[in-house]
Amino acid sequence: MAERFQSTADRIVRLRRQLRPHDAAALLVNDPVNVSYLSGFTGDDSWLLAGQGKLWLITDFRYVEQAEIECPQIGRIMRKATLVEALAKLVHQKRLTALAYDPETVSVYLRSELTKRLKGVRLVPVRGVVSGLRMRKDAGELRAIAAALRVAEHAFHEFRKRVDLGMTEQRLAAELDHQMRLAGAEAVAFPTIIAIDASASMPHARPGNRRLKRGSVLLVDFGAQVAGYVCDLTRVLMAGKIAPLVRSAYELVYRAQAAGIDKVGPGVPLIEVDAAARHIIQDEGLNDAFQHGLGHGFGRQVHEAPSIGPRGVKGNLEAGMVVTIEPGVYLKGRFGIRIEDDVLVTETGHRVLSHLEKDLEAMVL
Amino acid sequence: MAERFQSTADRIVRLRRQLRPHDAAALLVNDPVNVSYLSGFTGDDSWLLAGQGKLWLITDFRYVEQAEIECPQIGRIMRKATLVEALAKLVHQKRLTALAYDPETVSVYLRSELTKRLKGVRLVPVRGVVSGLRMRKDAGELRAIAAALRVAEHAFHEFRKRVDLGMTEQRLAAELDHQMRLAGAEAVAFPTIIAIDASASMPHARPGNRRLKRGSVLLVDFGAQVAGYVCDLTRVLMAGKIAPLVRSAYELVYRAQAAGIDKVGPGVPLIEVDAAARHIIQDEGLNDAFQHGLGHGFGRQVHEAPSIGPRGVKGNLEAGMVVTIEPGVYLKGRFGIRIEDDVLVTETGHRVLSHLEKDLEAMVL
Repeated sequence: MAERFQSTADRIVRLRRQLRPHDAAALLVNDPVNVSYLSGFTGDDSWLLAGQGKLWLITDFRYVEQAEIECPQIGRIMRKATLVEALAKLVHQKRLTALAYDPETVSVYLRSELTKRLKGVRLVPVRGVVSGLRMRKDAGELRAIAAALRVAEHAFHEFRKRVDLGMTEQRLAAELDHQMRLAGAEAVAFPTIIAIDASASMPHARPGNRRLKRGSVLLVDFGAQVAGYVCDLTRVLMAGKIAPLVRSAYELVYRAQAAGIDKVGPGVPLIEVDAAARHIIQDEGLNDAFQHGLGHGFGRQVHEAPSIGPRGVKGNLEAGMVVTIEPGVYLKGRFGIRIEDDVLVTETGHRVLSHLEKDLEAMVL
Repeated sequence: MAERFQSTADRIVRLRRQLRPHDAAALLVNDPVNVSYLSGFTGDDSWLLAGQGKLWLITDFRYVEQAEIECPQIGRIMRKATLVEALAKLVHQKRLTALAYDPETVSVYLRSELTKRLKGVRLVPVRGVVSGLRMRKDAGELRAIAAALRVAEHAFHEFRKRVDLGMTEQRLAAELDHQMRLAGAEAVAFPTIIAIDASASMPHARPGNRRLKRGSVLLVDFGAQVAGYVCDLTRVLMAGKIAPLVRSAYELVYRAQAAGIDKVGPGVPLIEVDAAARHIIQDEGLNDAFQHGLGHGFGRQVHEAPSIGPRGVKGNLEAGMVVTIEPGVYLKGRFGIRIEDDVLVTETGHRVLSHLEKDLEAMVL
């Protein structure tokens, strides 16, 4: 418990440092994931007012007990009025003359409501300050991600034992999800993708009624959530004999992933990490078969900054970031191969956090 | 298939009628749920441009095949650039001089990006036009909701057979969720609430390690998702003998719910529906034990307009709306009782869509 409050206290210190250059004494945090990151509170419909002094959570009756348990360290306001009205009252009580907000999480409509209700208070847009903090994971976050991986990997082994010819994608997804929950996941990290053969050529396929047959290629993209943090893994299983084309595609993706992971380290431009893996697939003339990004950050959400792709990405990897590395090759109407692992950027290089087997021979059911 | 396209075509007709008074030839739809409602496309990171002519979906490589299957009836653009860049190109090609957008779904940051990229195009805020359409469900939507209810109710019966003393809230939630998936749910509608005894005094409790004991009160709030639509139900099960206080609370909530349901009909002010149920609980002096709203609309999402509560709600029920009616009584440190059913507003009154047993004697395990 004490450690949990220490984590959020450290985050608040970092937040205050980030806010200092901006001309506002307090930040409105209205995104529920950011609220949870800074306070420990896990409900929704609740906002945080984070200033130099005491923090305040504005919530309602449904969460009165939960907030007492989850964030006794901060002020709690049980609103009966709307969130905007309760915020206005608090801002006026604290005599704040300026309030920072994140233009990425505040809608145009909410901005106009704030303007109406917060007369005399300057609204200062400060973009992505909390999501920026969230990019570099602290020790508590890394422990939660490791726990999510343990659960997901254990569940995958249990799932493999239960896979059988004739099962549909939907049935297989239900089984894997159940194994994650039995292993201790509080939820699945995202809707599990189970795609057999031609379905897997859609990178974001939804599980349907396609059945596993002898010789099928089975793509499994899944993750568990533990203590509010997720992991994100993809493996491809083979139902029996491996066709030559599948073998060569798998080995290509495997090599591309190894090259991408190898490139991961602090200070490395994101675009170079992508290129390291992509070149290997392009060298085989398969440019068109791999058109999504190489990976992405994750943590409380399955997609967080940074994004690792071939276009429109700026910046470098930094120590403390946790990213997926997940190249793929998709052959329309045939099959799809993707291999995805979770990698921590360390001070000196990287550490692969996931441990699930991925050698082709080990993927045969 | 044909019927599915007819549904989306009808929605587009209704949308165009709503847009007519506004001074813009097309609407940017950037909320994924609204995109799905109007097009049938279920992926994310995709926008719809809905004008008087052809509709366009702006998506990317990951969804090329899925979009072909889900929405062959509309134009599809596979972007390589950002969403804003791809939109700007399309808007300029179509020579649009004004573009409507929903200020509730467009962030302040996105608004500023649109302004930058869409030079010479007027941006016209039109609030909640798609979510407004979504309030009144069409025949296809009602069939999907009925299917979600069949799945959830079948799963609840299977779940009841498997409930056992000593099981934790988490284990019970995993079991119910698995039964919903086995019964055909593509997903659970929201994180299932399983709350035993004192946990249930938190209306939005998360399943924890509390175990079911002889004499426990077990609150179960759950829903299934089928064909993109959800349901939302709450039942309270009794593990053996019913304590007198539990009995009287249950009977009170039962009566309050019946009064609330009885009030449901077209043209009835939302606040009166809430009052009908709330008065019954207040008459017993339990005002403080029921502080959340009486119910809410649902459909593609578990919380949609309208909201039925005692404060800050305007407007009336309309035929075609589907709402929950879910009064509760929460006694801190003891237990919580909530009974929730799903009700359709018809042209002449209402129809209760859920059929799960709720007489107290039937709730004993």
